[in-house]
Amino acid sequence: TVDGQRLWDSLMEMAKIGPGIAGGNNRQTLTDADAEGRALFRSWCEAAGMSMGLDRMGNMFMRHEGAEPDLDPVYIGSHLDTQPTGGKYDGVLGVLAGLEVVRSIRDLGIRTRRPIVVVNWTNEEGARFAPAMLASGVFAGVHDEDYANSRVDAEGKRFGDELDRIGWRGDEAPGARKIHAMFEYHIEQGPILEAEGREIGVVTHGQGLWWLQVTLTGKDAHTGSTPMGMRVNAGLGMARIIEAVHRIAMDHQPNAVGAVGQANVWPNSRNVIPGKAVFTIDFRSPDLGKLTSMRSKLELEASKIAAELGLGIEIEPVGHFDPVTFDPGLVATVRRAAEGLGLTHMDIVSGAGHDACWINRVAPTVMIMCPCVGGLSHNEAEEITPDWAKAGCDVLLHAVLEAAEV
Amino acid sequence: TVDGQRLWDSLMEMAKIGPGIAGGNNRQTLTDADAEGRALFRSWCEAAGMSMGLDRMGNMFMRHEGAEPDLDPVYIGSHLDTQPTGGKYDGVLGVLAGLEVVRSIRDLGIRTRRPIVVVNWTNEEGARFAPAMLASGVFAGVHDEDYANSRVDAEGKRFGDELDRIGWRGDEAPGARKIHAMFEYHIEQGPILEAEGREIGVVTHGQGLWWLQVTLTGKDAHTGSTPMGMRVNAGLGMARIIEAVHRIAMDHQPNAVGAVGQANVWPNSRNVIPGKAVFTIDFRSPDLGKLTSMRSKLELEASKIAAELGLGIEIEPVGHFDPVTFDPGLVATVRRAAEGLGLTHMDIVSGAGHDACWINRVAPTVMIMCPCVGGLSHNEAEEITPDWAKAGCDVLLHAVLEAAEV
Ligand SMILES: NC(=O)NCCC(=O)O
Ligand SMILES: NC(=O)NCCC(=O)O
Repeated sequence: TVDGQRLWDSLMEMAKIGPGIAGGNNRQTLTDADAEGRALFRSWCEAAGMSMGLDRMGNMFMRHEGAEPDLDPVYIGSHLDTQPTGGKYDGVLGVLAGLEVVRSIRDLGIRTRRPIVVVNWTNEEGARFAPAMLASGVFAGVHDEDYANSRVDAEGKRFGDELDRIGWRGDEAPGARKIHAMFEYHIEQGPILEAEGREIGVVTHGQGLWWLQVTLTGKDAHTGSTPMGMRVNAGLGMARIIEAVHRIAMDHQPNAVGAVGQANVWPNSRNVIPGKAVFTIDFRSPDLGKLTSMRSKLELEASKIAAELGLGIEIEPVGHFDPVTFDPGLVATVRRAAEGLGLTHMDIVSGAGHDACWINRVAPTVMIMCPCVGGLSHNEAEEITPDWAKAGCDVLLHAVLEAAEV
Repeated sequence: TVDGQRLWDSLMEMAKIGPGIAGGNNRQTLTDADAEGRALFRSWCEAAGMSMGLDRMGNMFMRHEGAEPDLDPVYIGSHLDTQPTGGKYDGVLGVLAGLEVVRSIRDLGIRTRRPIVVVNWTNEEGARFAPAMLASGVFAGVHDEDYANSRVDAEGKRFGDELDRIGWRGDEAPGARKIHAMFEYHIEQGPILEAEGREIGVVTHGQGLWWLQVTLTGKDAHTGSTPMGMRVNAGLGMARIIEAVHRIAMDHQPNAVGAVGQANVWPNSRNVIPGKAVFTIDFRSPDLGKLTSMRSKLELEASKIAAELGLGIEIEPVGHFDPVTFDPGLVATVRRAAEGLGLTHMDIVSGAGHDACWINRVAPTVMIMCPCVGGLSHNEAEEITPDWAKAGCDVLLHAVLEAAEV
């Protein structure tokens, strides 16, 4: 098994970079803090004898050589970027557990036939640049490079310019690598494993997602002297659509969720009726029928709400993936590893999107999950225990050793 | 009568300072653009033989001497600051029309017994620092100086620090002046005068106002992996309260309005359920009973909405004035002036708050209004005609001459 203390220490060390305001992290993609986190990870990997590949999306591929270098490697990957008020484990655990697997293999003197590559995928969170899982999406051929480079953040900065600015753009063509199998170990980000008292989630499926960015156009006007009947209030339209998103998700229970996370009105002044509102809807379901139905119901209702208020409306999809079925063979590998280690486990569906969801389109892929306290994630208070972290990492080690052929 | 072309030219010249993005202005209070606008106004006044007084709130008092300097002066005042996406006339017209009155008196060789003082009141808009009409409120003894100096903008900058920074803090104690009468000339900011085809609004009353800043506290959490039943969604609470504000205002028709102009969620990330929302409600009515009723109904409903969603709620009043009755003697003076000039007029209630509403508490005060196109204000497209601007300025001249005793 792995060295749980070393894994934990690495997690705590990485969390010092891009500290949040409440004990978590703000290490958003392509910021100076992201660059610092990358450099630390690289130095650890090189100290463990690994060598770096870097593609044009800034995806970092840290390679531990196999006995047969020409065989397709086994990949272990997740992401080092965080939400603006994110936790210390979302993504980071999967990357540093990959490093811990390599460190342990070296310590134990184990030799695998296949190389092992630990990956840090760029911009998984999608907080700064929509959509999420952007660079693994380019790797998997879902997005092209121009699309990725042209994504802009809230300040109008381009993804491509920011990647150049922090100095982490490589030469390698994204997607040029052949992957024998890819493993992603991640915290659950939901409450099920903890509630069921299981140490390991064997991830069989992932929810599908629609992100819909809505722009409502009304008319800026004085809140005091404009009669109620003359108002074209984009903020009121936004409020009604936020409520509709909630109701539509509730109407599709179980196995469906919906919310608005990002919401802005203009000019955002106390005595001006908002003339413009821009906000993003997030719908998810493991059931493609429900996912499609929520989107089309929302489009219908939102258009009706806008028409009633005299608002202009535009709905632009800014993120999408279909529900995912992970590779049955690798799912069985993970389950076997958990059983071999005597760990409690259960099959689970990932509520969040992950880089694994895209890589699954181009290579056999699977995920392993550990519980997180109260199911809380995308919150600085996100927490796991060292024992949980280690248990999942042990499963990762055993599954990777099987896939990489000892 | 006044020189309408000179008044219009001055308006257009001032509008060059702090240009907006769509033909209007962004000359928010205590910005560099505000300082530039003040300097231009001062230079014009000094060229017209006026001398400046400046109080500790940055209120500018430009004095034209009377034949009997010891008599209490007649004041003409409004404001040069604008909304972030404001028009060229809201406030500015009243200040520059005051200057035009003095210029015309000099041109016509008229001598008044009383001095005439043209005032630029600081931070009328309340866009950058709540509440609106802050410095005239201090002058009238409604707020104390510490309260005003400690108001913060969205970036956390203090009113007092910004006033010092732009170099427009004077020595004079706010409120130390005695006012014989004060006139404020302003665009209507509503649709009534234009719809009724009247050139002049004789303002008999002003609406009262409540600004209520609501803070909802929920729990940041992942939009994908958090089951619907576990969510504590501050954004959803905000949406429901925005709808309640609208419904409550509609339930109090006629003569009542309500809206939310400023609305923010945190961390404002597409895949994070908002853990916090802060927004400001604006309720107004000329009827004190309705105003009070809207506030108390909202507080009740908002608390219910928060409780249902498990949200923490805090409601802080950040602006308030009771409905205003302007001085009947001065109202009659304005009506007489309009009639003497053969202008069409009607009595009207001000939908917006104005510096005159506060000064009315310490001195006889009245307002004059001119129409604005489509009733539009707090919008860069705010528009009036040169004829409308001149007609109101003529009424101002005649009313001031009566009050200042020719
Ligand atoms: N795992 C995770 O939080 N990924 C971000 C993309 C998503 O919102 O699901
Ligand atoms: N006249 C004006 O728009 N004043 C700002 C204060 C208010 O919102 O009424």
